[in-house]
Amino acid sequence: MAPTAAEQTEHHQHTRKAVGLAARDDAGHLSPLAITRRSTGDDDVVIKILYCGICHSDLHALKNDWKNSRYPMIPGHEIAGEVTEVGKNVSKFKAGDRVGVGCMVNSCRSCESCDKGFENHCPGMILTYNSVDVDGTVTYGGYSSMVVVHERFVVRFPDAMPLDKGAPLLCAGITVYSPMKYHGLNVPGLHLGVLGLGGLGHVAVKFGKAFGMKVTVISSSPGKKEEALGRLGADAFIVSKDADEMKAVMSTMDGIINTVSANIPLTPLFGLLKPNGKMIMVGLPEKPIEIPPFALVATNKTLAGSIIGGMSDTQEMLDLAAKHGVTADIEVVGAEYVNTALERLAKNDVRYRFVIDIGNTLDNVAATTE
Amino acid sequence: MAPTAAEQTEHHQHTRKAVGLAARDDAGHLSPLAITRRSTGDDDVVIKILYCGICHSDLHALKNDWKNSRYPMIPGHEIAGEVTEVGKNVSKFKAGDRVGVGCMVNSCRSCESCDKGFENHCPGMILTYNSVDVDGTVTYGGYSSMVVVHERFVVRFPDAMPLDKGAPLLCAGITVYSPMKYHGLNVPGLHLGVLGLGGLGHVAVKFGKAFGMKVTVISSSPGKKEEALGRLGADAFIVSKDADEMKAVMSTMDGIINTVSANIPLTPLFGLLKPNGKMIMVGLPEKPIEIPPFALVATNKTLAGSIIGGMSDTQEMLDLAAKHGVTADIEVVGAEYVNTALERLAKNDVRYRFVIDIGNTLDNVAATTE
Repeated sequence: MAPTAAEQTEHHQHTRKAVGLAARDDAGHLSPLAITRRSTGDDDVVIKILYCGICHSDLHALKNDWKNSRYPMIPGHEIAGEVTEVGKNVSKFKAGDRVGVGCMVNSCRSCESCDKGFENHCPGMILTYNSVDVDGTVTYGGYSSMVVVHERFVVRFPDAMPLDKGAPLLCAGITVYSPMKYHGLNVPGLHLGVLGLGGLGHVAVKFGKAFGMKVTVISSSPGKKEEALGRLGADAFIVSKDADEMKAVMSTMDGIINTVSANIPLTPLFGLLKPNGKMIMVGLPEKPIEIPPFALVATNKTLAGSIIGGMSDTQEMLDLAAKHGVTADIEVVGAEYVNTALERLAKNDVRYRFVIDIGNTLDNVAATTE
Repeated sequence: MAPTAAEQTEHHQHTRKAVGLAARDDAGHLSPLAITRRSTGDDDVVIKILYCGICHSDLHALKNDWKNSRYPMIPGHEIAGEVTEVGKNVSKFKAGDRVGVGCMVNSCRSCESCDKGFENHCPGMILTYNSVDVDGTVTYGGYSSMVVVHERFVVRFPDAMPLDKGAPLLCAGITVYSPMKYHGLNVPGLHLGVLGLGGLGHVAVKFGKAFGMKVTVISSSPGKKEEALGRLGADAFIVSKDADEMKAVMSTMDGIINTVSANIPLTPLFGLLKPNGKMIMVGLPEKPIEIPPFALVATNKTLAGSIIGGMSDTQEMLDLAAKHGVTADIEVVGAEYVNTALERLAKNDVRYRFVIDIGNTLDNVAATTE
């Protein structure tokens, strides 16, 4: 799992000038920072970043909520842009290609997890930002002008997939797609519950419909009903705190994608599942989850966790999304607006993802403050 | 899901005299009781009971631990015996056949669960004892001289399967076999952990080896090591409270069958699983289980529950057990010893299952007390 000698040598040459939006401390305020990126390694793809989504986890990282933040920090792992250069071993991409980078930029590429296409489980996996790279430097994310990434961790944007609306799929999309595929919740006719209608949930609804499933949104916010049934195309909407509505769909769901990061009672939700039903957690509540054993044992129910997904699944997800017109609902903002966007995100005031127009606005912001 | 008119009529004719070992109240003391069984319905198999295993759940039911006990109660759902008569529609069995009955004696036979072979998930499922039958009578279990059961809930004992050592497989065997099959923990070369070495655990070890898996027993009792590695054929044994032994097998197991009914910390056990690893709970701890979300989410781990199994799986399990020489380790006792056996079972003083020799001893006990 050690990096190759070539990688280490290449990575030490951080000669390329770039600019990013960086937080200096856990106040999390972003402002321009001149950085360097490595020179092009043999397997590397150099990408001019055009759009980058703002993920809720960026907020946690900026504020050091997980006590592992390194500053200066440049967040961003929903990156879409254009290839400007490739290393000599790279055959999958060429200059001009429309590409994306998600939550990972490298892994050992030789362990059992990597071999199985689960680079996201590799103990040597390197996150797109706030992670220590093979050369000892800390990775900088996509709120920046360009990035250099091993080709294995770059995906191709199909022609039909817009860069701005597609960028969030690289985190939010694969996070729900991967477990739906792995746990067989991608079969026409099955009944999928989507718990929580936010950045992840709204994409889960769209994938559920793309798979030909019946999709029911379960939300604590009655106000989201119209949107769920209308624009998002869900088949049904129930309010989780409405006992009658919950009772009416008892034992009807084949699976539930649980996107809620709060500690909520899970027992009533298990009641919505059919025998052999599965609840997939893709959020990370702060406290331990509690389940009465009978809720799982009585009719063979499953609680599984999942985090992002592997690279071949990410490409597959993007291709399928393009085919079915699945994109994220976004609000495009300029680089100058990013701190406001983060404040609004903290209050869930966005439907459903902010995407920074890096290509058209980052240079201006960098220029005015230099 | 309603019983047929014929069933209801047939079931009302409880004309057949039999004898059982019954508890009159939650003291749980067993003594002979003259009972009646129904006359032979068109789909019924009449079975002379020769052996019946004593399951740990019999203890709970006898003592009314689950607050749903009905008295008089005749326990027993690990029944092995010989067919004496069959109804006119029965084609699978004939008089003289060696057969068994497990935890269920009927279900609606028409719902989605029944259609999929999961009669154990049918809302109309009728347990072998302490359950209200379609005619309103309460079912009596296998600590008795004979029983009348719908043919769907009768399994055939292969020639190579002894009745006494095979009887416990009808509960303990299917309880571990069914989830191993359902969750893909039956593949040669995979690494199976078996948590707890009791009635269920010792059979799980044997099935794991029959499937060609590497089997590691995880136990709180160092004293069970020799037996686990010796007679039972496990590949490894670790003491759950030994941090070094646990650490040495971190991230190595594809699945764990958790047979422990106590509330124990699950986080260290999830640490033993590989990415995508599965823990299957077949016990029912009293209090809610607690899991830090990260233990599931970080590398896509699964916690699933399971309870017994369907009828076709039960037959398949028995056939496979016969082929591979998998039987339960038992101590055969006479009907006169049953109260002592229950006392010893409460102290876990048995390796690993008591089986009552109904055929040779029940009549004597019944005669002396009449």
